[in-house]
Amino acid sequence: MKKLINNPDAVVRESLQGFAAAHPDLVQVHFDPTYVVRADGAQDGKVGVVSGGGSGHEPMHNGYVGRGMLDAACPGEVFTSPTPDQMQAATEAVDGGAGVLHLVKNYTGDVMNFDMAADLAEDGGTDVRSVVINDDVAVEDSTYTAGRRGVGATVLIEKICGAAAADGYALDDVADLAAACNEDARSMGMALTSCTVPSAGEPTFDLGEEEMEIGIGIHGEPGRERKDIAPADEVVDLLMEPVIADRPFTDGDDVLLFVNSMGGTPMIELYLAYRKAVEVAEAHGLNVVRNLVGPYITSLEMAGMSVTLLQMTEERIRLWDAPVHTPGLRWGA
Amino acid sequence: MKKLINNPDAVVRESLQGFAAAHPDLVQVHFDPTYVVRADGAQDGKVGVVSGGGSGHEPMHNGYVGRGMLDAACPGEVFTSPTPDQMQAATEAVDGGAGVLHLVKNYTGDVMNFDMAADLAEDGGTDVRSVVINDDVAVEDSTYTAGRRGVGATVLIEKICGAAAADGYALDDVADLAAACNEDARSMGMALTSCTVPSAGEPTFDLGEEEMEIGIGIHGEPGRERKDIAPADEVVDLLMEPVIADRPFTDGDDVLLFVNSMGGTPMIELYLAYRKAVEVAEAHGLNVVRNLVGPYITSLEMAGMSVTLLQMTEERIRLWDAPVHTPGLRWGA
Repeated sequence: MKKLINNPDAVVRESLQGFAAAHPDLVQVHFDPTYVVRADGAQDGKVGVVSGGGSGHEPMHNGYVGRGMLDAACPGEVFTSPTPDQMQAATEAVDGGAGVLHLVKNYTGDVMNFDMAADLAEDGGTDVRSVVINDDVAVEDSTYTAGRRGVGATVLIEKICGAAAADGYALDDVADLAAACNEDARSMGMALTSCTVPSAGEPTFDLGEEEMEIGIGIHGEPGRERKDIAPADEVVDLLMEPVIADRPFTDGDDVLLFVNSMGGTPMIELYLAYRKAVEVAEAHGLNVVRNLVGPYITSLEMAGMSVTLLQMTEERIRLWDAPVHTPGLRWGA
Repeated sequence: MKKLINNPDAVVRESLQGFAAAHPDLVQVHFDPTYVVRADGAQDGKVGVVSGGGSGHEPMHNGYVGRGMLDAACPGEVFTSPTPDQMQAATEAVDGGAGVLHLVKNYTGDVMNFDMAADLAEDGGTDVRSVVINDDVAVEDSTYTAGRRGVGATVLIEKICGAAAADGYALDDVADLAAACNEDARSMGMALTSCTVPSAGEPTFDLGEEEMEIGIGIHGEPGRERKDIAPADEVVDLLMEPVIADRPFTDGDDVLLFVNSMGGTPMIELYLAYRKAVEVAEAHGLNVVRNLVGPYITSLEMAGMSVTLLQMTEERIRLWDAPVHTPGLRWGA
């Protein structure tokens, strides 16, 4: 296992220590229970926005804590759900009196633990709403999921809802916006290589030297099919067409196009893929009014990519463009 | 070769097409000769700042073209110097009457071609100053270099000098600042894996399953030594100690600490390494007043990291903090 780590069991903790040291202006990191909270804590009268999940998808979620996006995040061990006590502590730390929204990717452990945390926080007097994100069109049920998995749309919804909360939206309105964005988003990913969870010490799955997996999950869960590796333009077609067809996105729709690296795929390839993704979108009459290209929801060092389309409205464009200052996403601030 | 590409010979062109499609507000991409220029072209009365080099190090350099950093960049083929006609065209495209600074990483082809381009541009009436960057302490001469290689300091100098040019500094003053920053910067890198140049189709070098290369170059050139892979904290020591000793950086120095991924090393590992790098810096009495952590000067999908230290002054801190809006680095705008 070729990784820049010390003890496989200390990876998340030591990484969070470095993260805290790098961004003291933006975040505080608490341990036992472990959560990341914006440096200036709960904002009086503002809805708190909290997410979390297994580590290994950085910059998601810790990297989106700061101003204008998440108020707190709960990192689990690599590819492992965080526990309810982490989520409860994070929730209470960002309750400024206007309630807290949980943005939960649809994985069985995350959903169950966020449900328990919401109950605990409600018992403590914090209003909680939860929205489950399930944008992955690849498979209906999967290794860790009843129903569709939550993937790339999570990043977009965290940004848009974080901006809405900063803008003074009430809890129900931020939650409704998150649910509406989730309805209007679709994603699909693929892998060229596996990745290795440090505590496992060997690749999560095997993929032949000439193979790729279409519809891969962000923990390496099986997707739709294994195929021989193909030119990038074909790969992009295999992702974009099902994403467009599923909703369906139709002629004249304004969309945000998000082309994401799973981690090991470098920017030179990602922009090459973006070129084709725009072509496919435009061939369907979609207007790409905003885009995001880069490694924003990753699977450790996995090589591969995903595409996400989100229907945009004037409101969503305004909230997307609003200032954000986090370690992983920053503009206008 | 597992890459998201179509034709190995079209990678740079197709990637640049996607890059142009993603960032029309920031950049224009010209072909034949190929260069990237800020979307709003030459700025009247402002020094133009130009860099360039082989592709495969994204976001450097194309990703740093925009506002407050580079005015233009010349991408060569992967790991191959761009040609003088590219550099000349880029230089003339950003000449707003105050002259143009070339920031040149110290590789034989880059230096030679930028020299020729400077002569051609001078013949055409453009004032040009050139600063060669050579911050890599690993080796004195190397595969593509007489003298030390230019690596991580390039990113920092592009930011600081881009801000100085935006601030109205005269050509000689921007050039002097670049030279002074180069004097005050040191770097060293390491690799856990090789990378594959698309047109070559096989790894640039071989590294055993238990080996790492300390002092690696950004094109996979040999470094100081091959060793058995070691815990991250030891690796960071092997990079930080020579960097600190070389200048030397001494007790009380204010520094910017830049911990860079070679591409394939994910953020969870990079922050873990940053944690140790800060410890080493502080043990030497250095004050880490600014930092940068991420994949900013990469070698395709190579796993590994580099560290760069730059001595900071009040002026450099002010210029580092100044707004920047490029595809690869953005804040305050």
